[in-house]
Amino acid sequence: MTDPDSGGLVGVWLIGARGSVATTAITGAAALRDRIVPPTGCVTESPEFPGSDLPEFGRLVFGGHDIAETPLRKRAEQLEHAGLLPRGLPELVDTDLAAADSRILPGAADSERHRGQQEIVTELVRDLRSFRELHGLSRVVVVNLSDTEAPHPDLEEHSDLRSLRRALHENRNAKVLAPSSLYAYAALLANCAYVDFTPSTGARLPALDELARRNGVPYAGSDGKTGETLVKSALLPMFASRALHIRSWSGTNLLGGGDGRNLADPDNVTSKTSSKHRVVDETLGYSVDGQVHIDYVPDLGESKTAWDHISFDGFLGNGMTMQFTWQGRDSALAAPLVLDLARLLARAHERGHRGALSELGFFFKDPVGLDEHRLPAQFEVLRSFAEELGED
Amino acid sequence: MTDPDSGGLVGVWLIGARGSVATTAITGAAALRDRIVPPTGCVTESPEFPGSDLPEFGRLVFGGHDIAETPLRKRAEQLEHAGLLPRGLPELVDTDLAAADSRILPGAADSERHRGQQEIVTELVRDLRSFRELHGLSRVVVVNLSDTEAPHPDLEEHSDLRSLRRALHENRNAKVLAPSSLYAYAALLANCAYVDFTPSTGARLPALDELARRNGVPYAGSDGKTGETLVKSALLPMFASRALHIRSWSGTNLLGGGDGRNLADPDNVTSKTSSKHRVVDETLGYSVDGQVHIDYVPDLGESKTAWDHISFDGFLGNGMTMQFTWQGRDSALAAPLVLDLARLLARAHERGHRGALSELGFFFKDPVGLDEHRLPAQFEVLRSFAEELGED
Amino acid sequence: MTDPDSGGLVGVWLIGARGSVATTAITGAAALRDRIVPPTGCVTESPEFPGSDLPEFGRLVFGGHDIAETPLRKRAEQLEHAGLLPRGLPELVDTDLAAADSRILPGAADSERHRGQQEIVTELVRDLRSFRELHGLSRVVVVNLSDTEAPHPDLEEHSDLRSLRRALHENRNAKVLAPSSLYAYAALLANCAYVDFTPSTGARLPALDELARRNGVPYAGSDGKTGETLVKSALLPMFASRALHIRSWSGTNLLGGGDGRNLADPDNVTSKTSSKHRVVDETLGYSVDGQVHIDYVPDLGESKTAWDHISFDGFLGNGMTMQFTWQGRDSALAAPLVLDLARLLARAHERGHRGALSELGFFFKDPVGLDEHRLPAQFEVLRSFAEELGED
Amino acid sequence: MTDPDSGGLVGVWLIGARGSVATTAITGAAALRDRIVPPTGCVTESPEFPGSDLPEFGRLVFGGHDIAETPLRKRAEQLEHAGLLPRGLPELVDTDLAAADSRILPGAADSERHRGQQEIVTELVRDLRSFRELHGLSRVVVVNLSDTEAPHPDLEEHSDLRSLRRALHENRNAKVLAPSSLYAYAALLANCAYVDFTPSTGARLPALDELARRNGVPYAGSDGKTGETLVKSALLPMFASRALHIRSWSGTNLLGGGDGRNLADPDNVTSKTSSKHRVVDETLGYSVDGQVHIDYVPDLGESKTAWDHISFDGFLGNGMTMQFTWQGRDSALAAPLVLDLARLLARAHERGHRGALSELGFFFKDPVGLDEHRLPAQFEVLRSFAEELGED
Repeated sequence: MTDPDSGGLVGVWLIGARGSVATTAITGAAALRDRIVPPTGCVTESPEFPGSDLPEFGRLVFGGHDIAETPLRKRAEQLEHAGLLPRGLPELVDTDLAAADSRILPGAADSERHRGQQEIVTELVRDLRSFRELHGLSRVVVVNLSDTEAPHPDLEEHSDLRSLRRALHENRNAKVLAPSSLYAYAALLANCAYVDFTPSTGARLPALDELARRNGVPYAGSDGKTGETLVKSALLPMFASRALHIRSWSGTNLLGGGDGRNLADPDNVTSKTSSKHRVVDETLGYSVDGQVHIDYVPDLGESKTAWDHISFDGFLGNGMTMQFTWQGRDSALAAPLVLDLARLLARAHERGHRGALSELGFFFKDPVGLDEHRLPAQFEVLRSFAEELGED
Repeated sequence: MTDPDSGGLVGVWLIGARGSVATTAITGAAALRDRIVPPTGCVTESPEFPGSDLPEFGRLVFGGHDIAETPLRKRAEQLEHAGLLPRGLPELVDTDLAAADSRILPGAADSERHRGQQEIVTELVRDLRSFRELHGLSRVVVVNLSDTEAPHPDLEEHSDLRSLRRALHENRNAKVLAPSSLYAYAALLANCAYVDFTPSTGARLPALDELARRNGVPYAGSDGKTGETLVKSALLPMFASRALHIRSWSGTNLLGGGDGRNLADPDNVTSKTSSKHRVVDETLGYSVDGQVHIDYVPDLGESKTAWDHISFDGFLGNGMTMQFTWQGRDSALAAPLVLDLARLLARAHERGHRGALSELGFFFKDPVGLDEHRLPAQFEVLRSFAEELGED
Repeated sequence: MTDPDSGGLVGVWLIGARGSVATTAITGAAALRDRIVPPTGCVTESPEFPGSDLPEFGRLVFGGHDIAETPLRKRAEQLEHAGLLPRGLPELVDTDLAAADSRILPGAADSERHRGQQEIVTELVRDLRSFRELHGLSRVVVVNLSDTEAPHPDLEEHSDLRSLRRALHENRNAKVLAPSSLYAYAALLANCAYVDFTPSTGARLPALDELARRNGVPYAGSDGKTGETLVKSALLPMFASRALHIRSWSGTNLLGGGDGRNLADPDNVTSKTSSKHRVVDETLGYSVDGQVHIDYVPDLGESKTAWDHISFDGFLGNGMTMQFTWQGRDSALAAPLVLDLARLLARAHERGHRGALSELGFFFKDPVGLDEHRLPAQFEVLRSFAEELGED
Repeated sequence: MTDPDSGGLVGVWLIGARGSVATTAITGAAALRDRIVPPTGCVTESPEFPGSDLPEFGRLVFGGHDIAETPLRKRAEQLEHAGLLPRGLPELVDTDLAAADSRILPGAADSERHRGQQEIVTELVRDLRSFRELHGLSRVVVVNLSDTEAPHPDLEEHSDLRSLRRALHENRNAKVLAPSSLYAYAALLANCAYVDFTPSTGARLPALDELARRNGVPYAGSDGKTGETLVKSALLPMFASRALHIRSWSGTNLLGGGDGRNLADPDNVTSKTSSKHRVVDETLGYSVDGQVHIDYVPDLGESKTAWDHISFDGFLGNGMTMQFTWQGRDSALAAPLVLDLARLLARAHERGHRGALSELGFFFKDPVGLDEHRLPAQFEVLRSFAEELGED
């Protein structure tokens, strides 16, 4: 293998770098590097997964943006106390947490200074470039883990890169882009791959897609699939292959933790429930009754519980039902996927992939560039892609 | 297409021809032929399913063995009353039910006469041959829908066809074969394809496999997958592809109806729970805690309810759980698969397939000749097979 | 016993007389009178229930208001088809359905004519009086079974009877009262007991309470307790008596049928979810997290499914959870309670009870005049009341 | 109050003193005494519970029998690690754990020496007496928390005290009593109150009841109600008061931890499932279909999960279902009840109660001397009893 990047360091720049998912990912990566935990939950580490020449955990360097000021070590201890991180682990990887913590900057949300959006982008680009240079990183992947945004209005200016640039330069006060798109724009400008793990807009604008293709940078998203929708995408093909006719699919999601609190705002939840609902209709090709609820239940802490009720018709009109309850720990489900995605994007970038990576739809509720929501089919696509990444 | 069979009639000979599944299948086939119901639940009729030149519903001629004497029309009315058959349907297909009913014989279980096993086989072969000749059938498929048997002891005599023949001829009183295997033996001798929809032994003996290959007859089985195990086989690949480690999988099945009553006998249930359990361990490649219970709850009538509890580990040892409840109507789930299988076997026989059809594992809890229990993979195999069946 | 009413006929006047609940109640009362069904679901007919000298089913005469024009017999057949009424029952009680049907009038909702609210009340009173006279009824009980209304604004004019009267007389166009309150007002004026089986305002206004007391008429309500809240009221005292601390209680209700459709309107659902939520906080005496959802899922037909998730703390802060799923048939749960209430109100009226009957809280989600939501305590109160009704 | 015992110390002698329940109870009592945790889960400490002059937590002195040798402090740390005890708590009550640990003796199960049953009893009595004298205890309550035994055969010798004594003296090798009954016998002989928190025989033999009455000692049992049966006893009166007819009640219990392992032995589980089943039939007065399973699922650790499925008939034969899932932590549910029972028995003994305390049925699956399984009724009986205990 003559890969020039081989052995080089890969930067993972997390937007929301002091949140639960980020803290779990950073802690977990150090634990995996030191082989003190098994790689449970890491798709790319499973024995079935094709060798893809992905960067090893020890080659990942973490940094990011966050306005929260609680240090990572403190956050890790809170998660340890909540039972999410194994006892004693934060202490064992103390140095790694301190190092990552020192690379966290306030970012676009810094409200102290009044800045126009172009100015913010310029500063974000500078942050990313200095992260790369300072640590001699061969690649940098930016992963958006921040809170779900309220939907941003569609604007004329999003339709091509030139219009977007003009709009940002001409009007200092306009809100041309959603915050997630500011980060995506900056990432692409700085030649960093970009992943949106949230349902926010991120890179999904024609102008940004144009930029990604032009700059030869890949991006992926949106909205990490870690619970109810994961199960949906596994069950839908079962019903379809058995020619059972789904009549209604109703779901209630109870979330504790920060994500739940954020989604309790009706504006923000809209992005989420609509991406959750799309899965069913798009897969089946016919319209299905039922609603999706997301409730914030602080008492649940780091846990989330989803209950789904499916009614369906079988032979000769026989009505039947299926219900499931999924009781998961959100950050533990999301964090290993963040590591998977960072490694896959770094390698894909290296291999010359550019623009939307629809091959990574397996990871997302609302996969960019992909109409396929059936998990098994998504997994096959992912495996082929991974095999290709591993070829000389 | 120059298929010589095309348009010919296909016999479907049901062991347990007056049971709920058989009654539903016969009633449903008539309704499908007349297009008064949609083909919900029929895998081979789904728009996604490749055209395979399967015999149309109107070409199926039903007959079978059963010691029960309640006429099919009466059974259909009972099922109509239980809400399993649409109101008015038994009346609409009255002629078909009467015709099929006239072709039901008592079979091997006829306890009036003391007969040796070889004698029984000879009579069963005669029944099948006269069914074929009387109705000018180009093919006959025998489908075992009778009650689950107690496990039959493994005998030396099962190891090859010659030993089996000798054992049957030499000892008039020996129980060399389980009843299901008598039917399978007779079917293969009479050049009929054989399907075991139950967990009983059926054709799964080296001696019978030898016979099937020698006579150029295909067979398939075992144990139709219509509920808990169906869901299992859809969820297992989800956990596997996400590298989540399953710790325990526990299940309780509440069954009303005849199947439940039969399985309340601890001897009989053994065949069933062990085939249910195998799915998990064989798919994951590691051993998983947990038991499977099958309870007879007469009050549930034609319904069955399964509750499964799965505990699994995610990233950094985080324990999580999933539960599901499946509330199905057993005969409505099984009957369309019986039609699918009869049609697929008839066509496969026509195309020269012989021996165990491992390609039909999609339909079974304990697929003969197949270690693959993941539903999506089984479906892909089935689709390829079906495509091949459809080629000129 | 020298009860002068004994043997007299009792009128049951249903608002929404052609709805599912009303149709089931009328059909069921005839079947109970003829002893062709057991009194399952009838609280007052249970062996444990004290003899209370309630009017027998044969003494009940049904009539009511409804703008729907589908005849009761037709409605009963629809319910028979949906499996809610036993097959053949509508035919058996055909005469009763026809008789009740002939006593159904359009009522307040008749939109053909523009009428002021006072005028409507006058007509409703006339309807009720002529029902009583025509059939020689010793008592009449009006039961509101119509769709849940949007909440009606609180008005100054509701505070006493005099203000209410003045407001109705002075302003022909004002919407002083909600429709349910128009019916309650008319009932009380016509000396008929009144029950509100819906969460609508009905008689729960100071002015109407004043009228009930003045006229010596009892009333009861609100919002029949037939599913999720019934279970809640049974489980809450369990947690309380074990000193377990409930942290959150979340619920999702999936409703088919007319009630579901009506509640899909966000205005109407407000009355319902707030009365559902009150039960928890009022019983426990501390505030509990969690939301209640009501979704309309047409596919469920006459069925409803509720899923509740309860998280609670035990000894030394151990967090635990309980979930339940209730799969009921709404009209079958409600109809026998309607009969119970009509009989209890008739007897209470006879015994001189007036104003709000807080003793009937057992039947309601939001019991008027009662802070007690614990089912066992409500049942004890009901039993004492029933015993008292039975005394000479 | 002139209670001579007031302020005196009360001994709590636990059979199985190093098990999870015992360790949690001893740790929790110290924490409650020091007011560092709220009394969640303690029935007798709830605001609704009548003042009963029960001994305060600071007056309890713990000791017991166990053959396990892992010290209490170590056990407490294991439970802390499993998340059952709050972090840091074992350290805070270190002295209490060490003190209790020093009072634990091997007891009847000491297999090193071959002893006859009479000899064992004599030694157990000596252990209890020296515990009382050494610590100046005014009362001692023995609580059986050991593993569930296999059912012991009914013997002639159990019918009266004289026969029992003779049998024990005459035959050194006979197994006249089950181990739990040896402890009960010794407790009653030593004038100690006895509680059986397991389904084992314990004091429930005519001969031992005779002894308890003669010696003026109270006893209570059997089988602490901490999960599935608790919920059953809360739901059964709901169905009964609504005149709903239960058709089947099926249950599956998944248990981790020591109790699960023990119950995996089919002999032992018999005692348990039969006491679980009795609740339904005895309460309803008619027979109900369905089975109860208890599975050992090691992976669940200190947790247990019960799933129950109830099918019932409503009005006009409408079939409906309810399901619940209870996810509890066994020791956290049991331990506060152990403290409640120890305190109640000590006080009852002081007040002169003797023989079976049927008033404590609220705490048990299989309440001795009581046919009442409805939780609300049991709670009322308990409250009255507690009020009486509190009177001067």
